[in-house]
Amino acid sequence: MNPYQISPALSGERFQVHYRLTGNEAETREKARDICLEQTVEFPDDLVPDGDIRDQIVGRIESLEPSGEGRFDAVISYLVESAGAELTQFLNVVFGNISIKPGIRVERLELPPGWLRHFKGPRFGREKLREWLAVPDRPLLCTALKPMGLSARDLANYAYQFALGGIDMIKDDHGLADQPFAPFRERVERCAEAVTRANRETGRRCVYMPNVTASADQVLEKALFAKNAGAGALLVAPGLVGFDTMRQLADDDRIGLPIMSHPTLQGSFVTSPDNGISHFVLFGQLARLAGADATIFPSWGGRFAFSRDECRSIAEGVEMPMEHIRSIYCAPGGGMTLQRIPEMLDVYGNDVIFLVGGGLHRHSPDLVENSRYFLQLVSQFAPS
Amino acid sequence: MNPYQISPALSGERFQVHYRLTGNEAETREKARDICLEQTVEFPDDLVPDGDIRDQIVGRIESLEPSGEGRFDAVISYLVESAGAELTQFLNVVFGNISIKPGIRVERLELPPGWLRHFKGPRFGREKLREWLAVPDRPLLCTALKPMGLSARDLANYAYQFALGGIDMIKDDHGLADQPFAPFRERVERCAEAVTRANRETGRRCVYMPNVTASADQVLEKALFAKNAGAGALLVAPGLVGFDTMRQLADDDRIGLPIMSHPTLQGSFVTSPDNGISHFVLFGQLARLAGADATIFPSWGGRFAFSRDECRSIAEGVEMPMEHIRSIYCAPGGGMTLQRIPEMLDVYGNDVIFLVGGGLHRHSPDLVENSRYFLQLVSQFAPS
Repeated sequence: MNPYQISPALSGERFQVHYRLTGNEAETREKARDICLEQTVEFPDDLVPDGDIRDQIVGRIESLEPSGEGRFDAVISYLVESAGAELTQFLNVVFGNISIKPGIRVERLELPPGWLRHFKGPRFGREKLREWLAVPDRPLLCTALKPMGLSARDLANYAYQFALGGIDMIKDDHGLADQPFAPFRERVERCAEAVTRANRETGRRCVYMPNVTASADQVLEKALFAKNAGAGALLVAPGLVGFDTMRQLADDDRIGLPIMSHPTLQGSFVTSPDNGISHFVLFGQLARLAGADATIFPSWGGRFAFSRDECRSIAEGVEMPMEHIRSIYCAPGGGMTLQRIPEMLDVYGNDVIFLVGGGLHRHSPDLVENSRYFLQLVSQFAPS
Repeated sequence: MNPYQISPALSGERFQVHYRLTGNEAETREKARDICLEQTVEFPDDLVPDGDIRDQIVGRIESLEPSGEGRFDAVISYLVESAGAELTQFLNVVFGNISIKPGIRVERLELPPGWLRHFKGPRFGREKLREWLAVPDRPLLCTALKPMGLSARDLANYAYQFALGGIDMIKDDHGLADQPFAPFRERVERCAEAVTRANRETGRRCVYMPNVTASADQVLEKALFAKNAGAGALLVAPGLVGFDTMRQLADDDRIGLPIMSHPTLQGSFVTSPDNGISHFVLFGQLARLAGADATIFPSWGGRFAFSRDECRSIAEGVEMPMEHIRSIYCAPGGGMTLQRIPEMLDVYGNDVIFLVGGGLHRHSPDLVENSRYFLQLVSQFAPS
C-alpha cells in the first residue's frame, strides 16, 4: 500500500509544548512517545499509516532533557493543522487525554505566527486598558462586591462608595451569579448606575465589572445586557464556561469591553508540581490567548497556596512575546491586605491590578475612606 | 444594627457536598470552616453580617468524621439559592475557589428535589437509548473513527464497515474537530450517509456520533447541522466546552439526540486522591446532571491509570438515585481490547457501552469481520 498522503497540502508549521515528565530517561522517553500518539492519532504505533499521518500528524519529540531529580523536560511539536483554528481543539492536543495520565505537566507553549493569526487575543491589553480607565501610570485598583446574600441595592451602594473613594475597577464577587437575592439584571443596572453617578462626582473613569459567568445559552446575552446597562468591563470564569467562551466575549464587537478572567474551578490544574498545567501557561499564556485583559489569581502569602515563584511565573506569562497577542495585567488577590502592597509591587511591577476584597472592609467602617486610603497607599509606591 | 434579612424569603432547602479533607481533626475542622466561607460569602468571618447571610448563606458543617489515616470527611451544606438555577454557579459553590487550595476533594453530592427540578438531566438515559438503538438487552458496542489525518471519505468508509459489522455507535475520535483534512461538515455528511447506507443493508439502527466540541459560538450550530445531516447521537467534551454547554445540547428540543460525554482535559480533577473531584462525582453525578446519556472514561487495565475501584465508583455514580435524573451508561474505553470484555461485564453489568477504538483494527485487516467478532463476543456474555 502506498504511504498515506493528506490532501489538501499541509503547512508543515508546528507548535511546541514543553512538558515536565516524571521518571528516569528511559521512562520519560517512553512517556514522550506515548504523548505523541495519544494527543494526535490515538492509535497504536504499529497501526499508524505510513506517510503524512506518521510523519506529520503524530507528535514529534524535539528534545528530552533532565530537569531535576526524577524529572525530564520534553519538547513535543504538533502540526498546527491538528488543532485546526479552534482553542478547544488546541487544548485537546496540548493536554486532552494525557490530563488523565500521571506525571505529565504542561510547562510552556511556543506558538508560531501562522497559527496565532487565528486568534485576536485581548481586545485591550495593558495600554488600552489604562486609556479606558484613564489611569496613565500607577497600579490599578480593583475590589469585589460582596458578600453573597446582599441585595442589588446594597451592592450598588457599596459600588458607589468604592467608586467615590477612587477604586478603578469594581467587580462582582465571582459568587454573584443570578440568585434571587440579587438577580443579575437588577444588580447590573443598579451597580452600573451607581458607578456612573460616582464618576460624575469624581471625574474618574471607574468601571463596574459584572460577572457574566452563566448558563451556556446566557453568557453572551448577559454580556450584551451588561454593556447596554453601562458596565465598563466584564468578569468571566473560564473554568466554569470554558476558555473559548471568554474568547468569544473578547472577540465580539457588539460588546467591546475589557475582560477579567477568574480562576475558580481551575485550581486542580495547578495543585500538583507533576501534573496539570503550569501557572505560567494557565493563568498567563492561555488567559491571553483566550482574550483576557487581566488574569486574577491568588497571590502568595494570602489565604491560598501559590508560591512567590509561581506568581512570578504568571507575571512572566502575561507579558512574554506572543506575536500580536497583547500583554495583559496580573490581578493578584486572594486575601491580600493593604499592607502587602509594597512587596507585591516588587514582584509584579507597576503594570498590575491590585485586587482587594474583604480586606477593603477592614481599615475602617467607612468604605469611601478605605478606598481613598488604598489609592493613596498605592500611589505613593508608584513611579513618579 | 439589625441582623441582615434577605428578601425575597429563602427556601431553607440545602444541598450537601461530601468533601475529603487531609489533616487531623483540628486542621480539617478549620479547613471545613474555611470552605463554608470561601465557597459562599468569600468574606472574613468577623465581617459577615449577622442574620440570613451568616445563618443561611454561609456553608454549614453538617458532620466531620475520620475516614482513614490523616483524612476526615466533612459534609457541608449550602443553601440552594446560593447556586441559583445554574450549573455553572453550582460548580462554583461546590468546588470553585477551593479547587485552588490543597487537600480538598469533592467526594459526593446530595441534591434535594427542589433544586434538581432546575435540571432535566439526560434526555434519553438507559432505557430510551436502548430503544433508540433497537438493542433491547445486550451491552452496546461503540467504536471511534480514527486516526486523525484521514480524509472524510476514508473515515466514512470505516464507518460503513463498522456499521455493517454490527457496531451500535460510531463516534468521531475526540481529536476530530474541524481540521482541513476532514472538515466537520463534509465529515458529518459523509459518515452519516455511510452509516445510513449500512443500516439499510443490515436492518440495524447504528448511529453515527460526530464530535461537536468546537468554538463556543459553533457548538450549537454544529449540533444542529449534525442532526439535519442524519447523525444519530453527539459526542461532546465538557472539559473543553464547559459542562453547561453539554446541558444546553441535551435540553435543546431542536436537536433531541443522545449525548456521549468525553473526559478529555478533565484528568487533572482526578489525578490526586487528596485533591479535585472524585470519579463518582465527575464522571457519574455531574455527567448526568449535565445531560450526558453515556460517560466515557478509561477503564482499568488499559493505557490509563484508573483503578478497578475507581471505575466501579463511576458505575455507581451513573445509576445512584437522583430523583428524575435518569441513569446513564458507562462507556469504558482507553485501550481496552476485545479479550477484556468478560471481566468488564463483571464490573459494569449489562447496561454498559463497550468502547473499542484502535483495538478493533487489531483482530484482522477486515473491519467488518472484526466488528462482527466484537458483537459475537459480547453477545455470548450477555444474559439470554
